[in-house]
Amino acid sequence: MTHCNNIVTIGFDGDDTLWHNESLFSLTQERFRALLSQSADPAALDRRLLEVERANLGVYGYGIKGFVLSLIETAITVTDGRVPARDLQALIEFGKAMLQHPVELLDGVAEVVEALSGRFRLLLITKGDLFDQESKIARSGLAERFHGVEIVSEKDPATYRRVLERHGVDPAGFLMVGNSVRSDILPVLEIGARAVHIPYHITWAHELAEAPADGYLGIGTMRDLPRLLGL
Amino acid sequence: MTHCNNIVTIGFDGDDTLWHNESLFSLTQERFRALLSQSADPAALDRRLLEVERANLGVYGYGIKGFVLSLIETAITVTDGRVPARDLQALIEFGKAMLQHPVELLDGVAEVVEALSGRFRLLLITKGDLFDQESKIARSGLAERFHGVEIVSEKDPATYRRVLERHGVDPAGFLMVGNSVRSDILPVLEIGARAVHIPYHITWAHELAEAPADGYLGIGTMRDLPRLLGL
Repeated sequence: MTHCNNIVTIGFDGDDTLWHNESLFSLTQERFRALLSQSADPAALDRRLLEVERANLGVYGYGIKGFVLSLIETAITVTDGRVPARDLQALIEFGKAMLQHPVELLDGVAEVVEALSGRFRLLLITKGDLFDQESKIARSGLAERFHGVEIVSEKDPATYRRVLERHGVDPAGFLMVGNSVRSDILPVLEIGARAVHIPYHITWAHELAEAPADGYLGIGTMRDLPRLLGL
Repeated sequence: MTHCNNIVTIGFDGDDTLWHNESLFSLTQERFRALLSQSADPAALDRRLLEVERANLGVYGYGIKGFVLSLIETAITVTDGRVPARDLQALIEFGKAMLQHPVELLDGVAEVVEALSGRFRLLLITKGDLFDQESKIARSGLAERFHGVEIVSEKDPATYRRVLERHGVDPAGFLMVGNSVRSDILPVLEIGARAVHIPYHITWAHELAEAPADGYLGIGTMRDLPRLLGL
C-alpha cells in the first residue's frame, strides 16, 4: 500500500467525517415536509428547496442559518404566501435546535484521532458557518488533538494551497480525509496532495461530484485509516 | 505623542472602521419599522428586536443572516402570528440586499491604508459571518494591502492573543484601530497592546461598552491616523 507513504500531515474534514451533520439536515427536511404536507407534494417540495438553496448559495454561503432562510423562502413560495406565520416560527425553531444539537462523533473517530495525533500533525479543515463550526469543534472534545483548525467558506484548490502554506505543509506529505469527493478529494488531488474518501450514508445533492475522480483511496470507516498509514 | 511609538504592526477592524456597516443595519431596521407600522409602535418594536437579537446571539453569532432570522422572529411575535407571509418574504429580501450591498469605504480609508502599508505590517481583524466578511474584503479592494486577514467570531483578549501569536506579533509593538470600544479597544489594552478609537456615527446598542476605558487615544477620522504614527 504505497498510497499513504511518507505522510507528515493529515487533514480531516469535520461535518460527516468526524461528526454527524447531514443526518441533522435530512431530519429537519423531513420535519419540513411533514409541516407542509397539506400544501405541497414531498418530492416537489424537495426539488423546490434544492433550487432555492442553490440560488441562495452565492448570497448565504454554507450553513444552518442560510438553510433556515431557504426553508422559509421555499415555504412561502410553494404556498403562494398562504403559509401561516406560526409554521414559519416552527422553521426558526428547527434551526435553533440544529444549532444547539449535541455533536455526535462518528464511530471510531475519537480513538483514531487520538492514535494518529501522536504520530502525525493533524489539521481540521472544515467548511461552513464560522460561529457554528467553532461551537461544534469546541463541543466535539477533539480540538486539542489538532495542530491547527481552519474554517473556510469554500473548499477549492486555492483554499487548500493557502491553508497548507499557512501551516508550512508540503503537499507531497499531505493527506486529506473526508466524505465529500467534491470538497475533500478533487481539489486536494489537484494541488498534488493525496486523499482518502470515507463516504457518509447521506450526501447533500449539491456536494455530489459531477465526475468520478481517479487516484484516491476509499475506505468504509474511520477505523480503517490507521492500517492505511501502516499502523 | 508617545502613545504610538515603536509600532510595528497595525490591526484594523473592518465593519464601521474601514467600510460602512451599521448604517446598513440601521436602514434595514427603518424599513422593518415601516413594514410593521400598522402592528407595532416603533420604539416598542426596537426594544423587542434588541431583546430577540440578544437572546439569539449565543445561537446565531454575529452577522446579517442571524439578524434577518431575528427580524422574522420579532415580526411573528409582535403580531401574535398575524404577520402576512409576504411581509416575511420582504424581510428575507432586505437581508439579501444587505448581503449584496456594495462595500463603501469610509472617508480617507483607501489613502491611509495605502500610505501605511509600506511602513507597517497591516492586519485586518474583523468579526462576523465568514462568508459575508470574505465577500466584503474581496469587494473592498483593500485585501492586498494586508499582510494577514483574520475573521473571528468574537473579539475578546483570548482571540487577540491567538491572532497575534499566529502572526508572530509582539503585543508591545501592536496597535489596534477600530470603532468599537467593547471589541476593538478594551480587549486589546488587556493584552498589553495599544489602541486607537475612531467612533462611527452609529453604534449597535449591544456594542456599547459598559464602562469607559483608560489608556487609549480617540481620533475623529481615519485621516488623523498617520499623524499619530509620526508620518
